Amino acid sequence: MKTYKQLGLAALAAVTIVACKPKGTETAVSGDAAQKVYVAPGKLDEVYNFVSGGFSGQVSVVGLPSGRTIKVLPVFSQHPENGYGYSEETKPMLETSHGFIPWDDQHHLSLSQTNGEIDGRWLFANANNTPRVARLDLKTFKTVEIIEIPNSAGNHSSPFLTENTEYVVAGTRFAVPADGQDDVPIESFKQNFKGYLSFIGINKDSGEMDITFQIEAPGFNFDLSHAGKGKSHGWFFFSCYNSEQANTLLEVNASQNEKDFIMAVNWKKAEEYLKAGKGKKMAVEYAHNKWDEEKHMATSTIKKEVMVLSAEELKDICYLIPCPKSPHGCDVDPTGEYIVGSGKLAALIPVFSFDKIQKAIANKDFAGEFDGIPIIKYESALHGEVQKPGLGPLHTEFDGKGNAYTSHFVSSEVVKWNIETLEVLDRQPTFYSVGHLMVVGGDSSKPYGKYLVAYNKITKDRYIPVGPELPHSAQLFDISGDKMKLLLDFPTHGEPHYAQAGPAELFMKDQVKFYKIDENKHPYVTKGENESKVVRDGNKVHVYMTSIRSHFAPDNIEGIRVGDEVYFHVTNLEQDWDVPHGFAIKGAQNAELLIMPGETATLRWDPKKPGMYPMYCTDFCSALHQEMQGYVRVSPAGSNVPLTYHLNNKKDNAQGPVKQGEVK
Amino acid sequence: MKTYKQLGLAALAAVTIVACKPKGTETAVSGDAAQKVYVAPGKLDEVYNFVSGGFSGQVSVVGLPSGRTIKVLPVFSQHPENGYGYSEETKPMLETSHGFIPWDDQHHLSLSQTNGEIDGRWLFANANNTPRVARLDLKTFKTVEIIEIPNSAGNHSSPFLTENTEYVVAGTRFAVPADGQDDVPIESFKQNFKGYLSFIGINKDSGEMDITFQIEAPGFNFDLSHAGKGKSHGWFFFSCYNSEQANTLLEVNASQNEKDFIMAVNWKKAEEYLKAGKGKKMAVEYAHNKWDEEKHMATSTIKKEVMVLSAEELKDICYLIPCPKSPHGCDVDPTGEYIVGSGKLAALIPVFSFDKIQKAIANKDFAGEFDGIPIIKYESALHGEVQKPGLGPLHTEFDGKGNAYTSHFVSSEVVKWNIETLEVLDRQPTFYSVGHLMVVGGDSSKPYGKYLVAYNKITKDRYIPVGPELPHSAQLFDISGDKMKLLLDFPTHGEPHYAQAGPAELFMKDQVKFYKIDENKHPYVTKGENESKVVRDGNKVHVYMTSIRSHFAPDNIEGIRVGDEVYFHVTNLEQDWDVPHGFAIKGAQNAELLIMPGETATLRWDPKKPGMYPMYCTDFCSALHQEMQGYVRVSPAGSNVPLTYHLNNKKDNAQGPVKQGEVK
Repeated sequence: MKTYKQLGLAALAAVTIVACKPKGTETAVSGDAAQKVYVAPGKLDEVYNFVSGGFSGQVSVVGLPSGRTIKVLPVFSQHPENGYGYSEETKPMLETSHGFIPWDDQHHLSLSQTNGEIDGRWLFANANNTPRVARLDLKTFKTVEIIEIPNSAGNHSSPFLTENTEYVVAGTRFAVPADGQDDVPIESFKQNFKGYLSFIGINKDSGEMDITFQIEAPGFNFDLSHAGKGKSHGWFFFSCYNSEQANTLLEVNASQNEKDFIMAVNWKKAEEYLKAGKGKKMAVEYAHNKWDEEKHMATSTIKKEVMVLSAEELKDICYLIPCPKSPHGCDVDPTGEYIVGSGKLAALIPVFSFDKIQKAIANKDFAGEFDGIPIIKYESALHGEVQKPGLGPLHTEFDGKGNAYTSHFVSSEVVKWNIETLEVLDRQPTFYSVGHLMVVGGDSSKPYGKYLVAYNKITKDRYIPVGPELPHSAQLFDISGDKMKLLLDFPTHGEPHYAQAGPAELFMKDQVKFYKIDENKHPYVTKGENESKVVRDGNKVHVYMTSIRSHFAPDNIEGIRVGDEVYFHVTNLEQDWDVPHGFAIKGAQNAELLIMPGETATLRWDPKKPGMYPMYCTDFCSALHQEMQGYVRVSPAGSNVPLTYHLNNKKDNAQGPVKQGEVK
Repeated sequence: MKTYKQLGLAALAAVTIVACKPKGTETAVSGDAAQKVYVAPGKLDEVYNFVSGGFSGQVSVVGLPSGRTIKVLPVFSQHPENGYGYSEETKPMLETSHGFIPWDDQHHLSLSQTNGEIDGRWLFANANNTPRVARLDLKTFKTVEIIEIPNSAGNHSSPFLTENTEYVVAGTRFAVPADGQDDVPIESFKQNFKGYLSFIGINKDSGEMDITFQIEAPGFNFDLSHAGKGKSHGWFFFSCYNSEQANTLLEVNASQNEKDFIMAVNWKKAEEYLKAGKGKKMAVEYAHNKWDEEKHMATSTIKKEVMVLSAEELKDICYLIPCPKSPHGCDVDPTGEYIVGSGKLAALIPVFSFDKIQKAIANKDFAGEFDGIPIIKYESALHGEVQKPGLGPLHTEFDGKGNAYTSHFVSSEVVKWNIETLEVLDRQPTFYSVGHLMVVGGDSSKPYGKYLVAYNKITKDRYIPVGPELPHSAQLFDISGDKMKLLLDFPTHGEPHYAQAGPAELFMKDQVKFYKIDENKHPYVTKGENESKVVRDGNKVHVYMTSIRSHFAPDNIEGIRVGDEVYFHVTNLEQDWDVPHGFAIKGAQNAELLIMPGETATLRWDPKKPGMYPMYCTDFCSALHQEMQGYVRVSPAGSNVPLTYHLNNKKDNAQGPVKQGEVK
């Protein structure tokens, strides 16, 4: 095998060569590619592709085969488009034990499964930087829950699911000392730093998450993971690098060992130990944030403890399988028999057999221990190796017909191979430097197949240029035939880190189109214009406001003073699909709201100087949208201008009566 | 003409009918539409389409004919993707006289022009809510300047340009009392509220803006505007509604008059009066924010005065032209002779003649005055009326072949007509409720033509659904033939309010691909790894950090304490295109950075509790990206752990020497 230095130079050279390749040398696009990706006006895409936003912290919904980004869904970052992370109702979604985090790094997605098949209920997403897992409800496409992960940092091997969505996992990529015992010298790494794997239980009906237990494992970098399926249900597989346990200059120091590990975790056995009282209660702090669909608001609570099982002490829950070299992807085929480890510095792809792993465990066919955890002999676990697949293998997905597809970052290609025979069947270049790839349903026990998407890291010269900062990009391949065919390049939102996808009908069946105003239980809801009012409580002023085409009630307010905290609680009274209203007021530090029909949303405004502040609707809602406006007068602190407002009612009085505000 | 109520009901009915139209009844798509919009992998789009983000506050670059969103450019909102509005360098760009505004509403765009033709230098954008104008440099596609507009609210009739980019204008949509005299009763509207039009001068070479003068005009709602061209150069035309001067329930109260106005402004004459000392100096406050390309940082300064000319006193700078009914769009044809006023409640489109307006002024052919401003007789200014164009005409652009294209919101269609003969030539439905439309170069004196894009307000059933909150959408038409042909639907970022476009070669010529490290004048730049250091100054800690594939220097830091303000000044040492690095540290309230090659960016971090905080690169940069990480140890306040760091240098010592931090 090449040394790190040889491979490192080869890697750089390869990237440069690929990136400088003149146009026209790539795979010829078949004449019908245009027809294959064209979704005519009035027609719908065939597939929902949920794409991670990487360093944007959000998730995109992309239609396939058109490659059109239908919508960016806010998850771990503020979203200056619909108010997520700015409105009073949504701010608690971004609270953590470190305070409010406005922006995170979102890497992987998992669609909920039943019996290993995508069921269209929920989408799980990880936050990498401040470790969290989010759940989106696919009835509303909203982020409805976020749970923080204690004893963790760089939550990368997440949010992978078991085949009935029993658990979503989270493993710390960066080894860390346990929370509360973490003010220790960095050089004490080998002694104090551990790897914690979290098993977050999911309520079957509601989808709600809770950390059932954590496993304390050696201080490796846990990178990626996948659950067993079918015969291997009950097991989870985690890749780990940095078995060198280096803490500085990892590009050199964590690339020394020829093999690192895949760790096989028997989570059914771990459950038994937990029931048997073998867990230790650890004092930690983590936020658990939930969206209330009836109140239209989030709450954030801090939880204080977690149950931890020791892999060192409980010897038969974790086993290490040697895997060359700095393993990254760790993928399980649809049958559950094969576990594919992709060493990002390896020149081959090892495929492990679940049956062989079980046999090796039964026979104690071990090559030693690491921190008390048995190491299964490489050959004993191995089904076989894919020889010369490409350089820098990263991730593998499956088409359900016995084929595997592996992305290769360094040689910038997708390689198709047979899972049984390990024979390479096809290879296609990507432009450029593919990271993850995805087959539609390719992470389930019943892949849909048909399309493969490569998510690339380098874009230069693929699109009209936009200065130093370029978009990231994806490439759509037709995999219905023997050979893969490149159909389309499409740019993406953020970094398209990973993605999952399923046929459209799975996600279209139970969607909410608007919220019923009668069911709105927001504490400041205003269910009709006649209920609108303005209430002063000390320096807090609550405006109970309605919006309907094409006016706000009230639309003129006086008696606000500098030093007040003004809360506009705006209820959108519309009761039809696709009639949002917006709300903005000049100078507001939180600036804007976007309110769906039947919903209430709140903008806090702390006016800084006296003046006349217009407010208006920001979502073009009707022919008279431009007339949907009003004024708020702000007087100096201590002013005695009385609190009044116009409560407009077209039926009643076009000028609107001037009413007195309530003062508590 | 229909009364408001009749038209209002018709409007609603029409929207409903259109939205419920069964699929398949729309214009048949010609068989070659797929080929016409397909941009094969490796090929580039033909046209740059700059699209407003509406309530997102940003601007998108869309490629045509593919309809692919290439990149979202942050302008008036925070951007949790590249750090705009979060990094220390970019925060000043969002400062205003009301403090930091994280999010605004971006409506219109103008590409800079020379002799009425797009020159590819700058893009101007307006902020509607807290009134501002931004300038983007099209060498870097960065927002490089933002100027706030005093005496204004709802900066809607902006940022339209004169034909040599002498001025960009801003007119207050909401009439307001003058700044500093604005704590007055709302019912004193007719007495105290005015309309201010700002003429912002632009430096020919640098593009820098400054408010040259404002015109104080009556308290109407100034809505849209366009400059004269060719023969009408020296004039500007502003549409205005609410000539009723209502302040509540405008959908009724501002829809009473059969005609409102277009105001023609002789800005060359205004310049003369300014030179002659006829302006009044007014005390105001407005922010002026500039990006320094060498220092890679922004500054914000508050300016304190503005020169104001009175339209009432200086009688020959403003003239009112009656225009039916609640005029919205105000568009000037490529020759500069025709001014098209689109009354959003009108059932016809009046076209005014510049020559006739001049003649009427010379002959004092007036129908009276409004607040001292002459009203030109409607018939005297009129070239003619387009009869029965559609319902709810909004905006018009031109193809340079004598044709005009007008969007109709209520009847949801685009109508093509002849500017000279006023004959309707074609009409095509839009799906649904089109707002602005755009012809490539259609706002210049030399349109490129070929494509028209309709920017729609309602989307339901056009894309795979995503719950209550749907994307907005655009539709691409081929206008190269006699009849318009619908080619493609594509979803957009935010609300695609308006757009401008030009052929790709205009924007590709002078782009910056990366920043030269030698020219970086950031005060905390680190130009090589050996210059990296950590400096404590009281409770402020400055980390001079470098990033290069695939490590940070330093990558281990100890001696940070709770209560410190830590500034990571990260310099990306790469010197090639498309090699950004990211930076994130666990728990950071500002979370992340994205740093282009040669640039320095700063993340402020206030650690809240002791612990071990990993940091890592968030932009997949190399085969060993996953190894690009480090640790920061935070000790309790008052701790005496010494300030140290690892300064890694592969050439020197793989483990890296541990160095002492400087303490000032």
